[in-house]
This record gives sequence, structure tokens and C-alpha cells, in this order.
Amino acid sequence: MKAVAMPTVSRVAVCGGTHGNELAGIYLVREMLKKRADGTEPVSVVTVMSNSRAAQLCVRYVETDLNRCFTRAALSAPVSETSPYEMIRSQELNALLGPKASAQAVDLLCDLHNTTANTGLCLITYSDHDWICLHICKHLQREMASTPVRYVHFDIPLNEAYSLDSVGKHGFAMEIGPQPHGVVRSAIFSAMQEGVQLMMDWICQFNSGMLFEGGWVDVYTMVKNIDYPRDSETHVITAAVHPDLQDRDFCLLHPGDPMFLCFSGETLRYRGKEALYPFFINEGAYYEKGVALSLARKRRVQIPSVQRDRILREWD
Amino acid sequence: MKAVAMPTVSRVAVCGGTHGNELAGIYLVREMLKKRADGTEPVSVVTVMSNSRAAQLCVRYVETDLNRCFTRAALSAPVSETSPYEMIRSQELNALLGPKASAQAVDLLCDLHNTTANTGLCLITYSDHDWICLHICKHLQREMASTPVRYVHFDIPLNEAYSLDSVGKHGFAMEIGPQPHGVVRSAIFSAMQEGVQLMMDWICQFNSGMLFEGGWVDVYTMVKNIDYPRDSETHVITAAVHPDLQDRDFCLLHPGDPMFLCFSGETLRYRGKEALYPFFINEGAYYEKGVALSLARKRRVQIPSVQRDRILREWD
Repeated sequence: MKAVAMPTVSRVAVCGGTHGNELAGIYLVREMLKKRADGTEPVSVVTVMSNSRAAQLCVRYVETDLNRCFTRAALSAPVSETSPYEMIRSQELNALLGPKASAQAVDLLCDLHNTTANTGLCLITYSDHDWICLHICKHLQREMASTPVRYVHFDIPLNEAYSLDSVGKHGFAMEIGPQPHGVVRSAIFSAMQEGVQLMMDWICQFNSGMLFEGGWVDVYTMVKNIDYPRDSETHVITAAVHPDLQDRDFCLLHPGDPMFLCFSGETLRYRGKEALYPFFINEGAYYEKGVALSLARKRRVQIPSVQRDRILREWD
Repeated sequence: MKAVAMPTVSRVAVCGGTHGNELAGIYLVREMLKKRADGTEPVSVVTVMSNSRAAQLCVRYVETDLNRCFTRAALSAPVSETSPYEMIRSQELNALLGPKASAQAVDLLCDLHNTTANTGLCLITYSDHDWICLHICKHLQREMASTPVRYVHFDIPLNEAYSLDSVGKHGFAMEIGPQPHGVVRSAIFSAMQEGVQLMMDWICQFNSGMLFEGGWVDVYTMVKNIDYPRDSETHVITAAVHPDLQDRDFCLLHPGDPMFLCFSGETLRYRGKEALYPFFINEGAYYEKGVALSLARKRRVQIPSVQRDRILREWD
């Protein structure tokens, strides 16, 4: 199979603190900001603290979830001084790193996140055929010895894509767990640091003209969310994730498997007809969103060999 | 050794939601509130949601940490409508369950807490010679198969004791971890439910006149707190708890052992002269308090046999 020629990845954005209590990304961005660029870097990297107000308060957001404010509609909505802070901030970030879906947008946007779920490292994207993102995933899978790396795909059109990473020409959330919100665990910080470094290594090698062989990548495509059982009147949850399911992100869940253990003692089972892969199991920030876990279908995606476009090389 | 005769434990308070994002206690209290007393219970139990406003918002506190508002000074301070909510609430709780250090106070106050640290179940008290608390601890240690149970002692005079449990004649925080704040994990909920049930079982047996044999209990007395390394100008933390120390609560820390791993990569070691027992390692709520971990000295305390006072029995 002939290598697909792709443009140089010249401008990269690494963002942290899009959620102000996901601390590994916040401290990694702070470390990166300390190291001033000396102009000799092979790639232009802009490092951004996305929601510094929320980070200051160590809360997910101040007024509304910033990482839901990057739809086409939200980015073009009129804002004023009285708009929620994050609605204003998303437009600032779009001006800085985008505009979304324009030629001016950064080539790659990596947005750093943490989850209380036992996900390992996930690259979360809106595309199952973004060869750059898929090759970076393959590179991380090859190089990271102690962290499982997975590719998660939300099948949503770009206009409706709501997260910061959708502003870049290529982009993903780099999501690592488990880590409590408001806590930084050294091993999670180190995994994130390694993940970002490996991403940069890959980009530099790609830009230098290296050919990356194609192959296969497992892609987990999000199918649906499952909410907690709730009291019909108060909407208060009446069960926690079952101990047999807790921490088993990306382990196949079969029909009939235990899903919740009610506070009253009763076990509730998965009633779906299809075995699916659970992820974001018991993510703390999703109680308010009505999500106890998400379910994905896995398939193997063949990715082509890629190489930097040779024509572009002459322009640099 | 002759059994020490002690008064009946007639009135018990079980409190949850003193911190509004420590969810196991909140859901356990909600479950207990569903089960209305039918008047046949051998012990009077009052179940309290201590900080329902904070629980509603799923935050530790609204204006100030409620569990620091039970010193003699705070409980006798004048309050008005403009006082912090928790300052008003602590006085309400003192009126309901105390007054602290009075004959009217509940006989035993059990306050339910969770921590992000890997503590197992701790009974945290202000006394190393409260035979009721120590016997309950011994009972839990005997009966709980899968959860380590420890007795932690803060050596602070009752006037300065700042937490809700200090309002009861006997009292402790039942602290269970690890659990992220804002998350309920089924196994942690079940351990807490079991701990409370075993406490009630012990009280009922004690009240019925059963003799409890004395013995030895390990007591961890808090010695000092250790803060994170911080930037001298910004006070932002510059390191996380070292991976070799993370999750090793109550494992002896020796001088020279790794304590922090700086975000820059450097390892910082424990510089104390005495081997001590770390606990509350990387508790999320303590970043703002300047506590990365606490250190305790362990010793074995001999506790006497106890039995309900026979004279009192005639009065009931």
C-alpha cells in the first residue's frame, strides 16, 4: 500500500486545565510554561491553561462546562459581559487556536484530561479515519510499557463536536485515569508527561520525512451512556456501580453481567442485547450529567502508511 | 483485671455529609433516614445529614469547613445572618446533639467520612483511653474480614477539638478510603455500612450487659503534618507524593525513604530522624490546608475489660 502524503504538523497546541480540577494536565502545562521556547524547537508548540479561573478554584468549571462550549453554535453565539465565563473563554480559545474548521487553526490540538475511571490513557477523538491521530495512538501503544493506550471515537459531526480538541485540524483529548479530581498522583502525571513527549517525538519524526508503516488499530466507538438508577421522585441515585464492574473499563460487558449494586443490597444487571465495552465507569464529573458509564463497540481499523507531503517540504 | 463499669450507651448519633462531597456517608445516611424507627429499637439512634447544603452542591463546604467549627470558641461565638453558613450550622448541630461536654450530649457520636487516601477504615478520636471507642475498634478489627481497621488519636484537649464527633460524650470520625470525593464506590459504601452495623451490634451487646474482655489495641497518635514542596513565590506545589509512598498509608516511613517526586523529576526524601507511620497520604481536601500527609507514632494500648454499670441498669 502506497504511503498517504500528509501536510507537515507545524503548529501544535497542548492545553491543560480545561477542567480546573483535573490536576495532572494543570501541573504538566505549568511545567511546560516554565520552559521558555528558545526558538530552536523543530515544532511550534503553544501551551495553554484553558480555564485558569476554574484551576485557581480547583473546580471543574466556574459557570458552565468549558468542554461543552466548542460546537459551531456555541462559538458563534453572541456573548456579553453577563455571559457565562466559559462561553466567553471558549470564543477566546477559538480565536487563539482556531478558528475551528479554518486554515488558520493549529494543526494538532492535544487537550489534557483526567478521570476517576480506570481508563489508562485514551485518545478521544471525533474521527475513526484521522491518520495522524491514529498513528500517534499506535506510537504511544508501541512505546508506553506500563500504561494501556486506547483510541476512543465519538461519532459526532464536527459542527456538533463540543470539546476544545475539535478546534484543531487534528485533535484529541488525552484522558488518563484513575485519578481523583483535585488530586495529582505522581504515576498519572508521569504517564501524561510521557504521552505528550511521545506525541512530540512522533510529530518531529513525521515532519522530518520519516515513513510510518500502516497497520491496525483497535477503535472503540461510543454507542450509548447508561445512567444510575435513581429515585423516581427525588432523582437521587439509588445504587453505585457494582464492585464486579468498578475499575473494569474496556473489559467486555456481557448481557446479564452485574452493573449496579443498590444501596439496599439488590444487584441490577446489564440488560442490553449486545456485549459492549464499558468506559468512564463511575467518572465523578458525570453524576450531574446522568452518566454512570459509557458503552463502546470495538473494531479494528486499518490505517495506511503515512509520510509528510514532499511538495510541502520545499516550501518550509 | 476487674471489668470497668461504664454507663449505658443509650443515645447514638450517626452523621454523614459533614463534608458534602464524601459520598459514602451521605448515601448511607440517606438509606438510614428511609428506615423510620418503629419504636422497638434497643438504642435510640438519631441520623443526621450534617451539611445538606454542601451535599446538595457536592462540595466539601459552602463557606468554611464545618468540621473545623466545633471548638469551644467556635461554638460560643456570636453568630448572625451574615456569619458563614457552617458557623451557624455547627451551633445548630451542637444544640441538637450536645451541648458539647454536657450531660445532655449524645452518648456516642459517629461521624462518617471518606478520604482519597488509602487508609482503610480509621476511627479518629481525641482520646487514647476512651474504652468505649477502643472496644468498638477492637470489635471492628475482629469482625471485618476484608478491611483493615485502625485507631487514630489526635492529642488535642477537648476544648480545642474541632470536629463534630467531639460533641458526643464518646465519639469518632469513621473515615474510609480510598474513594475520590464526589464519587461513591460500592465497596467503600459496603465497608461503611458494615462498620456502622458492627458498631451498633457492639452497643446493643454492651447495653444488654455482656462483658467485653480487655486486651491490646494499636493506637496511632498524630505527630505532625508534612506539606508539599511549593514554589517560594507562588506557593504552587512543585511535586506530588512519590509513587513509592502513594497508597502506603500506615506503612512505616523510614528516614531517607522517598517522599515526593518533583514535577521536574527530582526525588525528595523523608528527612525526619524517627521512623513514623504516614496516613492521609495525598488527601485531596488537604492541598488547601498545606498537608501532603500526616505522620503518627504507633504504640500498643492496654484496654480493660468493660461491662455496663449494673447500678444504672436498675434505673432504665
